[in-house]
Amino acid sequence: MAINGTVPSSGRLATVYSDVQISRLNHPLPLPAVLKSSFKIVDGPPSSAAGSPEEIAKLFPCLFGQPSASLVPNGADPTELGESLKIGVVLSGGQAPGGHNVISGIFDYLQDRAKGSTLYGFRGGPAGIMKCKYVELTPEFIYPYRNQGGFDMICSGRDKIETPEQFKQAEETVLKLNLDGLVVIGGDDSNTNACLLAEYFRSKNIKTRVIGCPKTIDGDLKCKEVPTSFGFDTACKIYSEMIGNVMTDARSTGKYYHFVRLMGRAASHITLECALQTHPNITIIGEEVSAKKQTLKNVTDYITDIICKRAELGYNYGVILIPEGLIDFIPEVQTLISELNEILAHDVVDQDGQWKKKLTHQSLILFEFLPQAIQEQLLLERDPHGNVQVAKIETEKMLISMVETELEKRKLERKYAGNFKGQSHFFGYEGRCGLPTNFDSTYCYALGYGAGVLLQYGKTGLISSVGNLAAPVEEWSVGGTALTSLMDVERRHGKFKPVIKKAMVELDGAPFQEFASRRDEWAIKNRYISPGPIQFIGDGSNDISHTLRLELSVHA
Amino acid sequence: MAINGTVPSSGRLATVYSDVQISRLNHPLPLPAVLKSSFKIVDGPPSSAAGSPEEIAKLFPCLFGQPSASLVPNGADPTELGESLKIGVVLSGGQAPGGHNVISGIFDYLQDRAKGSTLYGFRGGPAGIMKCKYVELTPEFIYPYRNQGGFDMICSGRDKIETPEQFKQAEETVLKLNLDGLVVIGGDDSNTNACLLAEYFRSKNIKTRVIGCPKTIDGDLKCKEVPTSFGFDTACKIYSEMIGNVMTDARSTGKYYHFVRLMGRAASHITLECALQTHPNITIIGEEVSAKKQTLKNVTDYITDIICKRAELGYNYGVILIPEGLIDFIPEVQTLISELNEILAHDVVDQDGQWKKKLTHQSLILFEFLPQAIQEQLLLERDPHGNVQVAKIETEKMLISMVETELEKRKLERKYAGNFKGQSHFFGYEGRCGLPTNFDSTYCYALGYGAGVLLQYGKTGLISSVGNLAAPVEEWSVGGTALTSLMDVERRHGKFKPVIKKAMVELDGAPFQEFASRRDEWAIKNRYISPGPIQFIGDGSNDISHTLRLELSVHA
Repeated sequence: MAINGTVPSSGRLATVYSDVQISRLNHPLPLPAVLKSSFKIVDGPPSSAAGSPEEIAKLFPCLFGQPSASLVPNGADPTELGESLKIGVVLSGGQAPGGHNVISGIFDYLQDRAKGSTLYGFRGGPAGIMKCKYVELTPEFIYPYRNQGGFDMICSGRDKIETPEQFKQAEETVLKLNLDGLVVIGGDDSNTNACLLAEYFRSKNIKTRVIGCPKTIDGDLKCKEVPTSFGFDTACKIYSEMIGNVMTDARSTGKYYHFVRLMGRAASHITLECALQTHPNITIIGEEVSAKKQTLKNVTDYITDIICKRAELGYNYGVILIPEGLIDFIPEVQTLISELNEILAHDVVDQDGQWKKKLTHQSLILFEFLPQAIQEQLLLERDPHGNVQVAKIETEKMLISMVETELEKRKLERKYAGNFKGQSHFFGYEGRCGLPTNFDSTYCYALGYGAGVLLQYGKTGLISSVGNLAAPVEEWSVGGTALTSLMDVERRHGKFKPVIKKAMVELDGAPFQEFASRRDEWAIKNRYISPGPIQFIGDGSNDISHTLRLELSVHA
Repeated sequence: MAINGTVPSSGRLATVYSDVQISRLNHPLPLPAVLKSSFKIVDGPPSSAAGSPEEIAKLFPCLFGQPSASLVPNGADPTELGESLKIGVVLSGGQAPGGHNVISGIFDYLQDRAKGSTLYGFRGGPAGIMKCKYVELTPEFIYPYRNQGGFDMICSGRDKIETPEQFKQAEETVLKLNLDGLVVIGGDDSNTNACLLAEYFRSKNIKTRVIGCPKTIDGDLKCKEVPTSFGFDTACKIYSEMIGNVMTDARSTGKYYHFVRLMGRAASHITLECALQTHPNITIIGEEVSAKKQTLKNVTDYITDIICKRAELGYNYGVILIPEGLIDFIPEVQTLISELNEILAHDVVDQDGQWKKKLTHQSLILFEFLPQAIQEQLLLERDPHGNVQVAKIETEKMLISMVETELEKRKLERKYAGNFKGQSHFFGYEGRCGLPTNFDSTYCYALGYGAGVLLQYGKTGLISSVGNLAAPVEEWSVGGTALTSLMDVERRHGKFKPVIKKAMVELDGAPFQEFASRRDEWAIKNRYISPGPIQFIGDGSNDISHTLRLELSVHA
C-alpha cells in the first residue's frame, strides 16, 4: 500500500497525488532523434491554401505562400546553444489531455537549447493575452503538471482576439513583455486566430512570432502534415474503456440496449474510433447520415431493424454508439429548429397548438414524430438569445424513445417479439482531462519542443507538425506547416473570413471503410472488445489509435 | 502496435481480445501460502446468530451453531490428493468484477487437489439450478474468462429458490448430477438462499454441501470474517478514475458544478470509498442523512451553503458525490411516495390539482418543493404494479434543480453573487463489468479455491472467508464462516424470514470518521486526487481500497 504523496507546487499548491499520478510525474519522455541531435531547418516549396487562394492571399499579405519547415540533422555539435528568448504560451478552448506536456516541451527546449530564456503562461486563455494576465513558468511551477491531465496549470478560455481593439491589446502585451514568440495551443478556430495574430505582428514589424499547436479531443483538426490533434488518443481510450465495460455488462445481463452518446459535435471521429476499438452492434456516423440525406425516421428504422434481427437470433441486448452532434447532421432537424426559432421569437406557444400551423408540412410531421419530452425541450429550453439549445437535447434518450415506439408498432404487426429496454449514457467530461496516454504525452512533448525550435529559427504563422507517428518515436519527423495552407474562406455578414476547415470523417477514408466493411458482422454477431483501462506500462501501453494507424497505413 | 488476438472459446466463441485483455488472461495469480501447502481444517467454537438466535436456531435446526473453519498448514506432503468431486457453481444477482475468477479458483482447486473431479456451471443464475440448465466446465471453456470482467461465462439471474416446489427442483438437479457440492456466488439474499439450500439438503440427508461466496460491488456484504465483498474494489476504482477526471476538468474549466450519482442503492459504501479516493467538495452519505433525520431541504441547504462559501472564495466550480439510494434514506420522501402510490391507485390526477388535497400537509409541502420535472416523473413513471419508480428518479438532476432555485433566492437576498452551472453524471454500469483489479482477481481466486477446500472437507452452510487482506497475499487467511452466524430475522407477512443484514456505512466506523474529519477542508480547499486508470503493473497496482485499509487497521 503506497501512501499518497504531497507534491509542492505554486499552482497545484500542496496538492495530494495518487500513486499513478506520481509515477506519471516521473515518466521520462523520449524525444524524436532529430530533436536530440543538432539540426537545421529546411524550407519546402511555396504553399497555397486549402481553398480560395486569392482571398487567403488578400487576407494574409505577409504570410501567404510561406513554405513549410522541416527539421533535419546537420551533423554539427548538438550542444551549440541558440540565443535566449522570451516566449508566451496560451491554452485556448476546451480541455484535451496532453496540454501540459506541450508547455513542458516548450519549456524544456528553452532550458536545453536557449539558456537564459523566459516562458510566460497567459492565464485563462486568449483573454490572458488581452489583459496581460500571465505567470512566469519555472521548473518548480511546471514539474507538478508533467504528464498530468487538465489545463489547470494556466487554465484556458474561449475568448477570441477579433476586434481592432483586441489586436491592439495583444500588441501592447507582447511589446510590454518583449516577446520573441507566442505559442497558441488550440483547435481550428484558435489556430486561425493564431495566424491572424502572426499576420498582424508581421505587418506591424513587431518581432513576436506566433506558432500554433493542434489540440482537440474531437480529432477534427488534421491534415497530411498534422496527422492528428492531441487529446484524441486519450479521450477515445477512456470512452472505449467505458464502452467495453458496458458491452461486457450487456452480454452478461442480456437484457439492455445501451445507447451511448459520445462527445464531439462537429465531426464523428470519436464515435468512429471508439467503434473501431470496441465493435459495437450499431454505430451512427453523422457524416454518413448527412451524405445519405437521412431523416430521423431513417436512423430510427436502421436501429430498429437491427434490434429486430437480433431478437430473432435470441439477443435482446446490444450497444449503440451515437455522436453528440447527430442531429446537426440531419437536414430536416435543422429546418425544424430554425422554423421553431423563428416562431418562438414572435409568437406564444398556445396550449391547443395553433402555433403549429406556422410550421411547414415536413417540419410538422417531424415535430409530431418526436417524443413528447423532446418536443417540450425544443419549446422550453432556450439560450439567452431565445434559440433552441440543441446541445442540451439528450439524443440518446430521444432515440431510445423513438425506437421504443417503432418496436411497439412492429410488435402489433407481429414483426417483432423481443423485449427492449434502453439504458442511456453520455460520455464526455470524463475524457477531456484524463491522464494523457503514453502517445499523447510523447506527442505533445514533441509538439511543444518543436514549437520552441520554430520560434528560435524565426518562423511565424506555422502550426507545429510532428509526423511519421506510426514509427518508433525516434523516427518521428518534426517541423511546421504554414497555417495559411490549411485555410479556406467562409462568407459571413458579407465579408470573407478565413477558416481552417474542420476535418470531417471521410466516407472513403480508411477508418470509415474499415468500419463499414465490418459493421454488418458486428451488428448480428457479438464481436465486442473490451480495451480495458489505459495502461502506462506493458502490453498495449504504446498503441496508437486505430484512426491514426489506418490513415497512416494508407499514406505510407 | 500489437495485433488484437483471437482467443478460442466455447463461450466467447472466436472473441477478439484487446492487448490488455490478453495480458490479463495470462496474468499469474498468487495463492495464499496455506493453500499452497498441505493443510488441515480447524474448527472454531460453536457460533450463534447476528440477532434473534432462537428464531435462527428454529429456522436452521441442522446448521445452527456450526463453528467457523480455518485452514492451517499441517506439514504433510502437499501433493496428497483428495477424492474426486462433482461440484456445481452458480452466479446470482448483479455483476461484479471477479466472478469469473471465483469459478477459476474452484476449478483449479479441483485440478490441483481432487483429480478426476467435474465442475458444472449452472446457466443464468438460480433458475439454471431449478431447470437443470448447465454446462460442464473444461480448461478450454474457462481459459478465455481468466481475470476478465463480466459474468458471461455462465451468466447470472435474479431468481430465488423459495417455494417448496423450487426446493424440490433444486433437489432433483443435485441428485441427477450427483453433486457433492454447490457454490453460490452472490450477495446477501443469495447467501441466505444458499444457507436455506444447505439446511434443506442436510435435513433430507442429501450429500450436496453448499458454500457461499461474498459478491457485490455495493460493499454491503461484510463482517469480521469476510472483510469485503468482491467487485467493490474494481468498481470504486473505475468510478474514482472518472471522478478524478471530472475534478481535473472542473478545476481547469472553473465554471461547472458536477453532480455525480454513484451506483449503490441500499448502502453508501461506494460513495464513501470514492470520496476517500478523490476528495470531492461535497459528499452525501445516505446513512448520515438517515441518522440525522434530514429532509431534502436540509440536504439542499447543506450543498447550497458550501457553494455560497466557495463563491466567496472565487470558486464557481466543484464536484459533488451522491449515492444512488439517497432518497431511500430520507423519511419524508418515503412518506410522500407511499401516499402517492395510494392516491394514484385510486384516483385520477386532475389538471387543477384537486388530488393534492389527499396528501398530508408535510407531503404536500415536499411535493411543491420538488422541481416540476421530478413532480411529473413521480406522477407518470410507474412500474407494472402502478408504483412510483424510485430508481428512475435522477437524483442528481433533482438536486441541481433544487440548488439552482435556492441559489436564485439567495441572489435576490444578496447573499450569493456567484455563477452556478450544474452538470449531471451517473456512474453505474461502467463499473460492474470492468477487468478486475489485481486485488479482486487474487481475492476472488482465493475465495473460489477456498470454497473447493471447504466442500472437499464436507463443510456446508459456510461462506468462503479470506482474511488478513492488508498483508501480502502469502499471509492471507483462508476458511469459512457459518452463514447462520451472519443472520437475523425479519418479520414478513406474519412469518419470520432469515436475512443476512446488509452492512451499512457505520458512522462511527473508521472510513466514515476519516471522511468526516477531512470533508470541511475538502469543501473549501480543493484537495482533489485523480487516481487515474486502474494499472495492472507498477505503482499503485496492488493498492487495496481505503475502506478496507481503514477497517483493517482498526481491527488490527
